[in-house]
Amino acid sequence: MPPVKLSTASELEALVNKFDTFLFDCDGVIWRGRTLISNVPETLDMLRKRGKRLIFVTNNSSTSRRDYVKKFADLGIQASVDEIFSSAYATAVYLHDVIKFDTSKKAYVIGGSGIRQELEDVGITTLGHDDNRSVSLATLAEIEPSDDIGAVVCGIDYDISYRKLATAHVNLTQNPDCLFIATNDDRTLPGGKHMYPGTGSLLNVLAHSTQKSPLVMGKPNAPMLECVIKKYHLDPSRSCMVGDRLDTDILFGIKGGLSTLCVLTGVADEAAILSSNSPQATYYISSLGDLAQLS
Amino acid sequence: MPPVKLSTASELEALVNKFDTFLFDCDGVIWRGRTLISNVPETLDMLRKRGKRLIFVTNNSSTSRRDYVKKFADLGIQASVDEIFSSAYATAVYLHDVIKFDTSKKAYVIGGSGIRQELEDVGITTLGHDDNRSVSLATLAEIEPSDDIGAVVCGIDYDISYRKLATAHVNLTQNPDCLFIATNDDRTLPGGKHMYPGTGSLLNVLAHSTQKSPLVMGKPNAPMLECVIKKYHLDPSRSCMVGDRLDTDILFGIKGGLSTLCVLTGVADEAAILSSNSPQATYYISSLGDLAQLS
Repeated sequence: MPPVKLSTASELEALVNKFDTFLFDCDGVIWRGRTLISNVPETLDMLRKRGKRLIFVTNNSSTSRRDYVKKFADLGIQASVDEIFSSAYATAVYLHDVIKFDTSKKAYVIGGSGIRQELEDVGITTLGHDDNRSVSLATLAEIEPSDDIGAVVCGIDYDISYRKLATAHVNLTQNPDCLFIATNDDRTLPGGKHMYPGTGSLLNVLAHSTQKSPLVMGKPNAPMLECVIKKYHLDPSRSCMVGDRLDTDILFGIKGGLSTLCVLTGVADEAAILSSNSPQATYYISSLGDLAQLS
Repeated sequence: MPPVKLSTASELEALVNKFDTFLFDCDGVIWRGRTLISNVPETLDMLRKRGKRLIFVTNNSSTSRRDYVKKFADLGIQASVDEIFSSAYATAVYLHDVIKFDTSKKAYVIGGSGIRQELEDVGITTLGHDDNRSVSLATLAEIEPSDDIGAVVCGIDYDISYRKLATAHVNLTQNPDCLFIATNDDRTLPGGKHMYPGTGSLLNVLAHSTQKSPLVMGKPNAPMLECVIKKYHLDPSRSCMVGDRLDTDILFGIKGGLSTLCVLTGVADEAAILSSNSPQATYYISSLGDLAQLS
């Protein structure tokens, strides 16, 4: 079925009544850059007043959920830690709740404090955050695999180093049981005027050197949504994924068996939404703020 | 034609007489790890006495040719800077001699002192070697492209940093004329007991983030041999590439239109050499040291 455009109050009312849970991508849906999208706070208030569960799903792995709540507050939106589901948190949930990671083993992290904090919060010891000492061809042999390491976790790392990459490499190639997990595979990330290399580009060093593919948690891959469903006991038929990008947000919802709502305040335009070559959203609206007219 | 095994003195004599120039891979041909292969110094002396030109071709980009000469001397082999052709030097020859790089522009280098020294020696200013200052999402926007940068050169870099990768990325994506050159694309490099990520793995960050492919100088790619031929005015029909690896050394010689000689002191064994699925060497011998019996 082609995506259905919703615009009248009764159409929007029917949408809201159809779901118990709304999952939101943030950039392009809630805000653009550092600016809130009009009427979105009012929409979120309306949904909360009606008892809907709200979950903000982000591929961001550099910020902990606690810091993400502060970012929401700075923009004038009240949100709780429980409403934030980042790819870093998804990694922690996956290791702790889904596969019951043996916590006598440690996770070697290429990534920032967001990942480390989420993993430590579920009782997983992390290694690697200060592995920045210089290395040379003569001292490479110091870098040895360790049986203690049960997983290599790769996210965005602004302090990436050859020592970290080499340590991850020898563990992935020499420890047969070492897991290889990536928070997300975003090729680039926005940083003001320009785009910069994202986690999906950094992890390619290891994917190529080890000839192994990581399990990728974040959108559009399925594991993060599986973690959301498990953590919140979601009924996919009563849940709706809201996003602005067809190839990440909408595809992510489709893979999880959710209904999807695409907004026009971000990347996708109406022509892209209606193209039969794109992942097919269930519904689309001009802006999440449109829902604010409901009371 | 299948590879021809050479073993009698007259066969070896005919081989030597057929060529004016011998190009050598080093590890597995001249030495293994830190040990010279038997009778190789005597073979090199014999070839020199007969007026042959010797060229040592290495994908190594971290060591300058001057330092490589010291490595030869430490192993008891006299060689001159002119006899060493590294992928770092090939990059300098390519930029300076082949494409006449505009030296009012600079090269942004992800790599070690070997590359920087070779580029500076041909008059190309290099940037990037101290770009290790910490960066965060908040300060990413500081990293801007510069019209001064005419090439991004990528080799092995034990001091790789996110700032370097991000700077290379914005120049490759924002400067339409910025060249993208890699010294080699070796997936891994040996460092004692283990293998570690090689240049070919590191450069994948940028290849993926920019969706651009670098021009790769080193074996088995053709540009390094084109630089050797140009620099020494070689006649390919009177030149022989000697190596121990079919998929790098021998393929490299074949691509350049040279005859090739595979030795059994390194990676390839006789079955691999004779397999019709492998690049076909012209000749093979058990060891380069076999030639020492000629006077």
